Amino acid sequence: MIPFAIDSGLGFAIVLAVILFFTKFFGLLFRHYGLPQVLGYIVAGILVGPAIFGEFCGFCLIGFESDAYTPLFLLKGTVDGEAFSIGTDGLEIFSKIGVLFLMFSTGLETDIKALRQTGLAATLMACAGVAVPMVLGVLICLPFGDIGLGPQNIYRCIFVGAILTATSVAITVSVLKELGKISTKLGTTIVSAAIIDDIIGIIVLSVVSGIAKSGAADATVGGFEGFKATPYGTIIMIVAFFAVALGLGFGVSKLFRWMERRWPNTHRLPVFSIVVCFFYAWLAEEIFGVADITGAFLAGIILSTAHRSSIYTDKKVDVNTYTMFAPVFFANIGISNITFAGMNGQIILFAFLAVLMGLIGKVIGCGAVAKAFKYNLKESTIAGVGMMARGEVALIVTATATSSELGANALPGEFMIMTVLLILVSSILTPILLKLLYKEHKPDLPEGGEKAPEESVTGTEVAAEQAATANNG
Amino acid sequence: MIPFAIDSGLGFAIVLAVILFFTKFFGLLFRHYGLPQVLGYIVAGILVGPAIFGEFCGFCLIGFESDAYTPLFLLKGTVDGEAFSIGTDGLEIFSKIGVLFLMFSTGLETDIKALRQTGLAATLMACAGVAVPMVLGVLICLPFGDIGLGPQNIYRCIFVGAILTATSVAITVSVLKELGKISTKLGTTIVSAAIIDDIIGIIVLSVVSGIAKSGAADATVGGFEGFKATPYGTIIMIVAFFAVALGLGFGVSKLFRWMERRWPNTHRLPVFSIVVCFFYAWLAEEIFGVADITGAFLAGIILSTAHRSSIYTDKKVDVNTYTMFAPVFFANIGISNITFAGMNGQIILFAFLAVLMGLIGKVIGCGAVAKAFKYNLKESTIAGVGMMARGEVALIVTATATSSELGANALPGEFMIMTVLLILVSSILTPILLKLLYKEHKPDLPEGGEKAPEESVTGTEVAAEQAATANNG
Repeated sequence: MIPFAIDSGLGFAIVLAVILFFTKFFGLLFRHYGLPQVLGYIVAGILVGPAIFGEFCGFCLIGFESDAYTPLFLLKGTVDGEAFSIGTDGLEIFSKIGVLFLMFSTGLETDIKALRQTGLAATLMACAGVAVPMVLGVLICLPFGDIGLGPQNIYRCIFVGAILTATSVAITVSVLKELGKISTKLGTTIVSAAIIDDIIGIIVLSVVSGIAKSGAADATVGGFEGFKATPYGTIIMIVAFFAVALGLGFGVSKLFRWMERRWPNTHRLPVFSIVVCFFYAWLAEEIFGVADITGAFLAGIILSTAHRSSIYTDKKVDVNTYTMFAPVFFANIGISNITFAGMNGQIILFAFLAVLMGLIGKVIGCGAVAKAFKYNLKESTIAGVGMMARGEVALIVTATATSSELGANALPGEFMIMTVLLILVSSILTPILLKLLYKEHKPDLPEGGEKAPEESVTGTEVAAEQAATANNG
Repeated sequence: MIPFAIDSGLGFAIVLAVILFFTKFFGLLFRHYGLPQVLGYIVAGILVGPAIFGEFCGFCLIGFESDAYTPLFLLKGTVDGEAFSIGTDGLEIFSKIGVLFLMFSTGLETDIKALRQTGLAATLMACAGVAVPMVLGVLICLPFGDIGLGPQNIYRCIFVGAILTATSVAITVSVLKELGKISTKLGTTIVSAAIIDDIIGIIVLSVVSGIAKSGAADATVGGFEGFKATPYGTIIMIVAFFAVALGLGFGVSKLFRWMERRWPNTHRLPVFSIVVCFFYAWLAEEIFGVADITGAFLAGIILSTAHRSSIYTDKKVDVNTYTMFAPVFFANIGISNITFAGMNGQIILFAFLAVLMGLIGKVIGCGAVAKAFKYNLKESTIAGVGMMARGEVALIVTATATSSELGANALPGEFMIMTVLLILVSSILTPILLKLLYKEHKPDLPEGGEKAPEESVTGTEVAAEQAATANNG
């Protein structure tokens, strides 16, 4: 007889309860003071994890099961050089599902139809908004050989650049809504550009992390694994992944459009969508060696073509994400990835400079493109500032760049502090600057007051609704 | 530097994808033929698990990571006497969260206010509907000493009785709705009785499993653990748990009513509710030695007093449950708990007899009470048949009764087949019999056609909506 598989150990339940409680509490506290909730989640993770209090962290409970002191919330880490982990498998899976769902949602919210209608301005703005911060990010790394960057660690430098690329449009959208400027041509251009920006950023990350991973892998093992470990093989595998994923995607998209006609708003749509998300993530990571978040994102984009069901699915997946999985992912960044032990003046100096590059890069890159499209200087600055805000995706990219499977090419975990700083500074500055700029700026429709095309408005509304949902704490 | 905690292994993703796909597929297939979805979930678990195909199960994939054959879906079990498990920690946690959420939802959907208005008829009907099948269940076990029951295994016999107690009202509600009889006095009495039935059943299960566990534990260890292991200590701990949980509950309920006034329909309500659910489950199991599902159920009842937020929370938790956790729980029953190896004629004979006791027990118990309350014979039979259907809760009770922590007092896993049979037979018979009975039965309002009180209608509507949600596949 096979024993029943449920383990009676409920340690995970209290760990989850504590993580969910503190993340929500600090998330709401941060939002109350106009700061991004996600930073509150990370702070909660820092507090319940070993970052500050080490083995004797303040929030640890005494285990009732034995008389020994059991630090429940030291999920995983090293204390005095020794690694330990307490029932973390489940939490790592939760954390992973969190990041997959976040990217899957980002994909689902990408309105491909609207994107096809996107003007050249938004497309070029997105490209410049990726390229300029990327280049500035790589350049700022070069003099910092002492903290593990410099030309000899070029992959890490490229990762820093990649981290600086992803715009988070939620803050900009809520400010533009507040000012009544969301449906203007400039507003819709910013929102469209931010969506394209995500796609370009993910492709860059896939290529870089694929090559970095292959550089870390052993190319001498021979066979298929050896082939995948060569840079040549890596590129082929990335291209093959996109070909297979998109090829399969046509069938999947057709199937879902048929299902949404036949059974609109039924549970089967989100459930089978989640199946597609997990399958694509697995396909990407385990078969083609591409980052799993790329697979999840692509699954989202493919399913977004079944438009009605994707909205329904996105709502359901969002509930999963925000009530269970995303808080664990972000808290885990605080628990596992933030440490003050390895900090030094150089890292902090570098973090400030990188943040500066990230902000200037967006303003210059996007602003220049806007200027080229005959917006005036103030409007161009608004475009640049609107694209400046960073959020969850920057954290996800950093998590991927610091993942241990990249071996020596992985960015050391200390650099997470740079991303946190980038989100903090950009989300404080963006609304202040946008309001200041609009105060002085009267005419916001440079080309004769024409309304943006309806498709773009739809895209905007989706993003606007997203921002509203994100604020529904 | 603490390494980043995300493990690259995405094996769990493909396992989850397969489980979700097959559970949904078979769930829909079963529903298509008028059978309960939950049985489809279990069949999916049987097919992807080792029950039929053993080590070389039909749906297993060949692992790409190594050249060896990797049976991905043999999550846990024994093959040729050797135990194995493949990355199951996460899935066990998923399964556990599934059962906790199912019980939490059952608690949330308990309308305490409506229950206070419940007439004596419904209350006594619930009591008789628990007592009669329970006694019949225990009695039918006594001659079956050969298959591990009999008077010498009295705990197991009581578990069999407990499994037969829990009514699942969803099928009855949908039939009554279809016939337009849901708001009649008889209809609301059935629905109210089914809710009280759950509460009594859970209390019985808590007491029995607490005592069975203490009987299995070592009472000689001394100290607190030793005290808990005595039958006397067990009873005290159960009473203490209810006292502490309800005492805390007043504060929790007050806090949630304040929150729902201040921040209606915000994410914080479901998140903090989930925290309470996990905390109560942990408190019950790990501190007081009571079944964790009792804690989750009680948390649900306490939060149901914050009425508006409980409806909002229930909707959100339901999304988590039905898209991710419950399918894993039910599939896990098929994967880990159903086996055809230990089957023999005696067990199958016993299963049929136990099912018969379960059905007859409800009809006699509930019918007799209805008759005593001046319903005519046909109406009393309708009441009995309406209470006869079984569902998820019977599976949850069986899972608790077969859990390994009960040691020698645990029901062997083979008896899961009895529960499956009970659900199958009762959910086929209930709608057929109800329709037949109503066909011959014209006047359904025995006391002058008066409408049921409004509170009861509310309770009915909640249950009816539940049934509708459960059918929204």
